[in-house]
Amino acid sequence: MSDGAFPRPGHAPGMGRLTAAPHPLLFHLLYEPQFARDREEVLPRLLRIDAAHVLMLAERGILPRETAAGLLRVNRELAARVRAGEPAVEPPPVHRGLYMAYERHYVDRLGPEAGGAAHVARSRNDLNATVARMRLRDELLALLQAGGELAGVTLGLAGDHAGTAMSGFTHFQPAQPTTLGHYLAGVAAELLRALDLLAGAFASVNRSPLGAGAGLGTSFPIDRERTASLLGFDAVVANSLDAVASRDYAVQALAALSSLGITLTRLALDLQTWGSRAYGFLRWPDHLVSTSSMMPQKRNAFVLENIRGRAAAPAGALAAMLLGLKNTPFSNSVEAGAEAIAHLWPALTAGRTAVQLTELMLREVEVDSERMRRFLEGEETTMTALADHLVARHGLPFRTAHEAVGRFLQDASAGDLRSAAAVRAGLQEALREVAGREVLLDESEVALALDPLACIQTARYGGGPAPEPVRAQLVSLDEARQDLAARVAAWRQRLDRAETSLDEAVTALLGA
Amino acid sequence: MSDGAFPRPGHAPGMGRLTAAPHPLLFHLLYEPQFARDREEVLPRLLRIDAAHVLMLAERGILPRETAAGLLRVNRELAARVRAGEPAVEPPPVHRGLYMAYERHYVDRLGPEAGGAAHVARSRNDLNATVARMRLRDELLALLQAGGELAGVTLGLAGDHAGTAMSGFTHFQPAQPTTLGHYLAGVAAELLRALDLLAGAFASVNRSPLGAGAGLGTSFPIDRERTASLLGFDAVVANSLDAVASRDYAVQALAALSSLGITLTRLALDLQTWGSRAYGFLRWPDHLVSTSSMMPQKRNAFVLENIRGRAAAPAGALAAMLLGLKNTPFSNSVEAGAEAIAHLWPALTAGRTAVQLTELMLREVEVDSERMRRFLEGEETTMTALADHLVARHGLPFRTAHEAVGRFLQDASAGDLRSAAAVRAGLQEALREVAGREVLLDESEVALALDPLACIQTARYGGGPAPEPVRAQLVSLDEARQDLAARVAAWRQRLDRAETSLDEAVTALLGA
Amino acid sequence: MSDGAFPRPGHAPGMGRLTAAPHPLLFHLLYEPQFARDREEVLPRLLRIDAAHVLMLAERGILPRETAAGLLRVNRELAARVRAGEPAVEPPPVHRGLYMAYERHYVDRLGPEAGGAAHVARSRNDLNATVARMRLRDELLALLQAGGELAGVTLGLAGDHAGTAMSGFTHFQPAQPTTLGHYLAGVAAELLRALDLLAGAFASVNRSPLGAGAGLGTSFPIDRERTASLLGFDAVVANSLDAVASRDYAVQALAALSSLGITLTRLALDLQTWGSRAYGFLRWPDHLVSTSSMMPQKRNAFVLENIRGRAAAPAGALAAMLLGLKNTPFSNSVEAGAEAIAHLWPALTAGRTAVQLTELMLREVEVDSERMRRFLEGEETTMTALADHLVARHGLPFRTAHEAVGRFLQDASAGDLRSAAAVRAGLQEALREVAGREVLLDESEVALALDPLACIQTARYGGGPAPEPVRAQLVSLDEARQDLAARVAAWRQRLDRAETSLDEAVTALLGA
Amino acid sequence: MSDGAFPRPGHAPGMGRLTAAPHPLLFHLLYEPQFARDREEVLPRLLRIDAAHVLMLAERGILPRETAAGLLRVNRELAARVRAGEPAVEPPPVHRGLYMAYERHYVDRLGPEAGGAAHVARSRNDLNATVARMRLRDELLALLQAGGELAGVTLGLAGDHAGTAMSGFTHFQPAQPTTLGHYLAGVAAELLRALDLLAGAFASVNRSPLGAGAGLGTSFPIDRERTASLLGFDAVVANSLDAVASRDYAVQALAALSSLGITLTRLALDLQTWGSRAYGFLRWPDHLVSTSSMMPQKRNAFVLENIRGRAAAPAGALAAMLLGLKNTPFSNSVEAGAEAIAHLWPALTAGRTAVQLTELMLREVEVDSERMRRFLEGEETTMTALADHLVARHGLPFRTAHEAVGRFLQDASAGDLRSAAAVRAGLQEALREVAGREVLLDESEVALALDPLACIQTARYGGGPAPEPVRAQLVSLDEARQDLAARVAAWRQRLDRAETSLDEAVTALLGA
Repeated sequence: MSDGAFPRPGHAPGMGRLTAAPHPLLFHLLYEPQFARDREEVLPRLLRIDAAHVLMLAERGILPRETAAGLLRVNRELAARVRAGEPAVEPPPVHRGLYMAYERHYVDRLGPEAGGAAHVARSRNDLNATVARMRLRDELLALLQAGGELAGVTLGLAGDHAGTAMSGFTHFQPAQPTTLGHYLAGVAAELLRALDLLAGAFASVNRSPLGAGAGLGTSFPIDRERTASLLGFDAVVANSLDAVASRDYAVQALAALSSLGITLTRLALDLQTWGSRAYGFLRWPDHLVSTSSMMPQKRNAFVLENIRGRAAAPAGALAAMLLGLKNTPFSNSVEAGAEAIAHLWPALTAGRTAVQLTELMLREVEVDSERMRRFLEGEETTMTALADHLVARHGLPFRTAHEAVGRFLQDASAGDLRSAAAVRAGLQEALREVAGREVLLDESEVALALDPLACIQTARYGGGPAPEPVRAQLVSLDEARQDLAARVAAWRQRLDRAETSLDEAVTALLGA
Repeated sequence: MSDGAFPRPGHAPGMGRLTAAPHPLLFHLLYEPQFARDREEVLPRLLRIDAAHVLMLAERGILPRETAAGLLRVNRELAARVRAGEPAVEPPPVHRGLYMAYERHYVDRLGPEAGGAAHVARSRNDLNATVARMRLRDELLALLQAGGELAGVTLGLAGDHAGTAMSGFTHFQPAQPTTLGHYLAGVAAELLRALDLLAGAFASVNRSPLGAGAGLGTSFPIDRERTASLLGFDAVVANSLDAVASRDYAVQALAALSSLGITLTRLALDLQTWGSRAYGFLRWPDHLVSTSSMMPQKRNAFVLENIRGRAAAPAGALAAMLLGLKNTPFSNSVEAGAEAIAHLWPALTAGRTAVQLTELMLREVEVDSERMRRFLEGEETTMTALADHLVARHGLPFRTAHEAVGRFLQDASAGDLRSAAAVRAGLQEALREVAGREVLLDESEVALALDPLACIQTARYGGGPAPEPVRAQLVSLDEARQDLAARVAAWRQRLDRAETSLDEAVTALLGA
Repeated sequence: MSDGAFPRPGHAPGMGRLTAAPHPLLFHLLYEPQFARDREEVLPRLLRIDAAHVLMLAERGILPRETAAGLLRVNRELAARVRAGEPAVEPPPVHRGLYMAYERHYVDRLGPEAGGAAHVARSRNDLNATVARMRLRDELLALLQAGGELAGVTLGLAGDHAGTAMSGFTHFQPAQPTTLGHYLAGVAAELLRALDLLAGAFASVNRSPLGAGAGLGTSFPIDRERTASLLGFDAVVANSLDAVASRDYAVQALAALSSLGITLTRLALDLQTWGSRAYGFLRWPDHLVSTSSMMPQKRNAFVLENIRGRAAAPAGALAAMLLGLKNTPFSNSVEAGAEAIAHLWPALTAGRTAVQLTELMLREVEVDSERMRRFLEGEETTMTALADHLVARHGLPFRTAHEAVGRFLQDASAGDLRSAAAVRAGLQEALREVAGREVLLDESEVALALDPLACIQTARYGGGPAPEPVRAQLVSLDEARQDLAARVAAWRQRLDRAETSLDEAVTALLGA
Repeated sequence: MSDGAFPRPGHAPGMGRLTAAPHPLLFHLLYEPQFARDREEVLPRLLRIDAAHVLMLAERGILPRETAAGLLRVNRELAARVRAGEPAVEPPPVHRGLYMAYERHYVDRLGPEAGGAAHVARSRNDLNATVARMRLRDELLALLQAGGELAGVTLGLAGDHAGTAMSGFTHFQPAQPTTLGHYLAGVAAELLRALDLLAGAFASVNRSPLGAGAGLGTSFPIDRERTASLLGFDAVVANSLDAVASRDYAVQALAALSSLGITLTRLALDLQTWGSRAYGFLRWPDHLVSTSSMMPQKRNAFVLENIRGRAAAPAGALAAMLLGLKNTPFSNSVEAGAEAIAHLWPALTAGRTAVQLTELMLREVEVDSERMRRFLEGEETTMTALADHLVARHGLPFRTAHEAVGRFLQDASAGDLRSAAAVRAGLQEALREVAGREVLLDESEVALALDPLACIQTARYGGGPAPEPVRAQLVSLDEARQDLAARVAAWRQRLDRAETSLDEAVTALLGA
């Protein structure tokens, strides 16, 4: 074989039957901006995939061992440069994307005979699909890590405030007495479910499409279980078309993250409401608020707005991705495999940022429990307890008790509600009117029913805020959190071990 | 207790402190249209929830057994009427929704003392949350059933056509030889994964929020594990706020269905492309096509367009639901629990319709395998095989082989490609030019490499279309399908058994 | 022509080359449910379109006058029944949609010779496109009407409260003094812009696709300007493919409504925040709030949550519609013309409901101006005014003044801020520290700068809340509102006149 | 004023009452990445806004002329550096965003007295709002330019192919004869409507919020009409709250672009379908297709997939933005003004790329009119014409004619359809059967009705494909295109002139 291979003017290896370079506008709008992004995110993964593929080809006798060794030596060199942050694969003045430049680098270094040998039984289609899954699994692990930490902080704060009385709210209005810990335990439960879905997405993602070629397999007797294992995948995607056509795992990941994001918008809205001066329940230190360039008195918990913005971004990206995938052929396509998938990455970053910022805001929140308690005592949050008391102690049907309390409230003044005597009198009057019967109450039982702190203690059923059952919930939620952390650690270990195995196997081949 | 209860003019039980009926516009725009819908979907489930709740209250001594019996007798009567399709709970001229009219019915029948007793330790908040989960789990089972049947038909058709040669496509252009069975096996794999996610959603949905009250629990010593079990739930939602505030399960269900829907749009696009006259691969019988009111020659497979429309609807509803939930307080709210959730039901129906129609179109498709084969033979789909052959038999590096075939194609006419002799000559020439070396080919090896049917047989690796490994995939996919069907059957059984238990327990109490 | 026309067994007119009825599942899932909806919304419009078409055919000599008269007589009869709410076109046991049953009705009444004559130079494609535009324009007019009324109420309320002092907010925190009127004027401006976009959508919608046939025109010398005019359209869609393929006008309408909806979610969130007990600025009468079935003290402004839910629905439907249209052929298709468009109607209803409910809530809101003022006076909203004063009267650079006020606030107690003397002293100290200079302030100027009511009066520039410029804004916004109302009235008149013209022309032909 | 201003440790101007730098995580996740983006896009616009503001302050006597001159000199210097691509505003090691560093730069250069003077009567809120509008209007002009060019190419191609016969399609099946020009004219009409909506968005965008301060105006007697004019705005936003809270213009722009994008997905799907080997109507030269790294025969028009991906992106971003805006307070907020708006920029780039790529693909498409014609002649596209002929010449009702042709097709072979004699015989037989009557046809009339080219010529009504009316459409569409181009040119001129005025006014002040 001569050095004169690929001699046609303007012809680059891989161009096949084409006789012209890409149109300048294509180059400018598509190939050039993509190259920069790919060198960052694709190249490091491509190098590992390539190493595993070449190693397997040699093991299976598809490539001569020496050819493989030549390729792997260049591969190691490139990988070292990438790790060192040095420029590794230089783009020619005009090109058709990173992969072609990458392959060209081998040909330039080893000549066409060896340099062009690696691309047997593979295609950019399965390579792209493999890179996308490897990138996504890394992102998911980082997200699960951050999510687990957020869950930990939330549960810790909930534990600290399992006894911190506050008004519960529905429809923005005071409802019944509760605790901040009870609120946070509820949020943490939803949060952990979303993280569990994200972990489920990891399991779907971590399957190898490598070996599927263009989507129609190959006649070379490759061992795709081997490459899958060397790359840390749990299994292979059985069908080659499925391997290159499907992006359902990306939808699964983004859907789970969207759900988590929605939870964060709800939490952040509550936190900002309660941190507003009208409530004054929460406050953040100076390094977490901003002031205004115009209004010197301002202390804005603006981070909660960034949280909501970033947390909502995955749901937008999910819409974009579903739109991108809709009505595409079930096969490899740029529309599905490059364009639609592109919505994934910024959304993962945004989602992770929202998670990290939320953790920070919960970690450093200052709770004004005194102000919470005062608000609670000033509102009518124990009226349900009062009605419940009439049922439990005086045998009234609940609806009648509810009506009587409602009737009483129609005429009661704010002052009345602060006096057990006034409540007793008014309620007895209302019971006469509504239920047509005389109920004898004494002040002490009324006072007890009106006491929000007592209410919290007795709300032990149905998942209510009494501190003891909330603490039990927190224990069980923390077990879920630990279980998740253990899964994440195990996955990381598997990926690390695979990386080591691949390195060792390459070293062994090179040494031989 | 006198008959004179709730005597205030214009006052209905449950109005509490309010002294006015709803504004006519509220009634007209909100309560009235909702009533009709709720009577259809909510009432049957409310009756069962109410029965379980009252039974539990009696078992726990919170309600006297006789009071409970009275309530349960009316409950049975109403349930019988609902089953018979008779009008059960009549709306008063002005009302505040089904629940209030429902409770009113008991008061009217049993008097306020007994009729108003059931509403202890509960709120519309936890009732609504419970109804939504019961409704959704029914819908999910129906969907999983239909999805399982679609998977079955797809796998059956794939099995029938594991040997039916066709051109594979990428970017709408002929790629390499494959089979229709291989294509369908790939689609079925993605389909079954979506169904598995839907089954996962069922597991998330099937947890009982009952007992959470307004979201802050209760001081009555209720047994929510008991009501959960009587209603067929797998477990309770531990935290009462989580129970009424969360709708993440609805997002989970809709996300899984959106993913399934996207798969169906891709399949239906391929089917319609291949059914177009330019391809002519597929055809449907008269009862599945429409003609035109204007163009008498028309046979339109329009159902594939309905499929795409309905299949895309869940993704739109998902966007709507995420939008609906964003920035709502984490508590009970109309915005989350009624408005956002409302996007669920039409989307589930649309998704199920798409599944059923797809099953029908696959069940009845007529495959023109002759036309598929002719198209395959007329296209250049074996050029990869030719390059592979040069690598495997003649030791060329793949990139050089690929280049040589590409070079050959630049000058080859359509006629050339049909003659092994012409290919041999042209390729040898191209090899000389591109690789600078002489490769001696004989016509028989070239003829074999050019034969698409032979290609299919040898594409046995990497998940390719060779019939044997495809059949193995189908076996394993069918196991997944059967496993899913078994899970669905077990869930149905559990729900049926719970219904029976509840009936028996009510009968026992009434008998006692 | 014999009575024996269309004699083939099971054959209905319009089936053309097809020899089988639709598959039962198609009938059950598609045709049957659609028939009921179409009879409601499509039939009344189809009757008018048909009348205009037949009339034009007769005028152009394409149909004999007597044939046309026969058809128009049946048309009138059917229209009368529809108006009377009587059943008009009965579905056969099995059918392929309303149109076929409609045409069948004419054949049954007049025989095939006359009954089958109307379908010349038309197709269901252009009929569907015409019906969709007629339906949408009616919906848009109703929406514009409701929107105009909402704008009127908002502007009226803004005028009433142009002098009602309240704290302005940014980031949920008190910012600077403002008025409720200023807030509402800002909202009204955004609202009126959205209505203007909706009016623009009306103009796009109101063009006639009739005559486009299947999308490829006709060789019959029809006069589509005539039918357009008889149906109240402003013009025709010039290109026949555009006429049946495009649904961009639906996107335009839904986008405008989505924008309006987002405005309403923002307004309704503010209203509910300010109506919460912690703020207490706003309140609604009993007939606009609900209580709780469990918590007797509750007065929930739940309608604001319905508003947000309904107002967000169009944005969800927009996502669904864009998804539905994406990657459809640019031609007539069920996917674009039936499925994608179907998301329009419930979204229009939801959007209109949100508009009407918002109008109601603004019309009946009770403003607690005393509580607003007290809150305003208790917060630090005049600190910007204080800094501005240092600039305007004492020549400090704004940044230094801002710093000095900020410095002062670091140590100031709540009590300090209520005393002009304390502020004077503290601020002078801060100015020494921050600016290194002595600024002599007297108590009266400080007191004036600290007075929020005075602040409002002086905030006359840049669109600020001083009552006079706000009133000027309201005048100009009201002109926009009146202009919109005039356009709506003119459009209604045009549609009414067209209806009259059509009736008269039919009468004339029947009389002749 | 001493050099010792802002002397507190760790204190930067603008921090006001805050005593701590931002938390490192905030800095790392928010401020730092934003700084790089803002320096690119915000700084150049901020400099112009600042110049206009300072100039106006001097003109109104709010700032001393010398102070203004000092500020403007630094401003000019910075602007010159930005234009030269040199680093202009260096970020301190820790900071709170570009604006604070920008202001700091002035203080560093001029001392606090002069350097801190510019920030009177303004806030980051109105600055941000102004920058966003200036950035968006630039993007819209670029988009309108590209869109106009695409429209021009489309119309040109349509004109070239007004006589190029092809089959029209509905439901992916041959419908009636048409021309490629007719198809493209239809697409161009929808395209131009979308561009008109984008131009409408420009008009909404081009209004100045400057002077609104934090959203509550100012007591300084500023002249916001003057700054608006100096910055090229058409008008001011009247209400200060509206000025900082509203982002409806961004929704309007993105909605118009989404609609345009959907049109492009439809066009690109049709082009790729017709470019597939099964159709073979269209082809692109080598510099616009890619081959496969594995399959040497491949010529993939992959750019059409990039087009669909990029064209769909704005619709995804629209969903994200609506989600981002939903339930935000109607006031300045990070959530609306920074987070939600951030979805705009990549979507505008993606949309523009799609437009440019589509233009390229249309400009260079190679139309195989011979292959189009052959396909047309081989299909049954003239059956409607045949039925029309029976109506027009033989007086049959259309439905009967349609039935008869349908009946005939049931038994006709492909060969029959190519012979006028066979059609004549078959059709007469069908007419006897269906209509019960004898219709005498002669071969020549049948032959004419069967000729697709003749059909195209006669389809002159209802917007059909006859070349003459299509050419008339193209003339009128081109007028719309020219009108758009003129509007764009006028806007550009206005912006350029404003830039010149601003420069001159600054020069004048500096000279004085």
